[in-house]
Amino acid sequence: MSSKNSVQVLIGGKVTRLTGYESEEYLEKVASYLNHKLGELSQLSGWRRMTADTKSTLVSLNVADDYFKAKQKAEEIEEELQNKDREIYDLKQELVDLQVMLDDLKKSNQDTKNGQYDRNGHRR
Amino acid sequence: MSSKNSVQVLIGGKVTRLTGYESEEYLEKVASYLNHKLGELSQLSGWRRMTADTKSTLVSLNVADDYFKAKQKAEEIEEELQNKDREIYDLKQELVDLQVMLDDLKKSNQDTKNGQYDRNGHRR
Repeated sequence: MSSKNSVQVLIGGKVTRLTGYESEEYLEKVASYLNHKLGELSQLSGWRRMTADTKSTLVSLNVADDYFKAKQKAEEIEEELQNKDREIYDLKQELVDLQVMLDDLKKSNQDTKNGQYDRNGHRR
Repeated sequence: MSSKNSVQVLIGGKVTRLTGYESEEYLEKVASYLNHKLGELSQLSGWRRMTADTKSTLVSLNVADDYFKAKQKAEEIEEELQNKDREIYDLKQELVDLQVMLDDLKKSNQDTKNGQYDRNGHRR
């Protein structure tokens, strides 16, 4: 079991201690992302007049929106991946079929060639 | 341009009006997800003693964590997708090579067969 990491970060101008099994780098990345999000939202007209409660709901909603979009993207690529798997399966099947045809033809070619020679190996 | 949707939802027991170009269904899904998240966090020991500020930071951090995990998953599948694309390219190349071999062999087989017959089509 990895040890817990603890890191002090600034979120929305307030010192917050983050603790988790994730790396310090990751915890700092999450804090930095939230600050970036806050920075974006603070540009909204009316932000200053909003209550702290409304502001925090707005932040959560925006982050949740990012989450759902990333999740949807992952699902779409996952579907694409399954299509690729089917394509690979079909291509491999095609390869096997072609290899069988090739082997048959090689054998048939060899038989035809052998037919042109007598049992002493002389060309007829 | 699609019209804006507006829907009243309960987030953390408070009535919140969500407005966006997303469907009402999506806005409700986001609200429901946030409530679920709040429900989970409220099970934490010490939740009741936390300030509203700390609570909202904790919610944002948790949602951000979900976002980064979904994002990472999307990136991993994206990489897998690129590997599959390379595999498909290689398989197609192999198919072309095999098809060329097959065509050559067919031609050579035909030539050999033709060699066994005279110009009148009689078997030698």
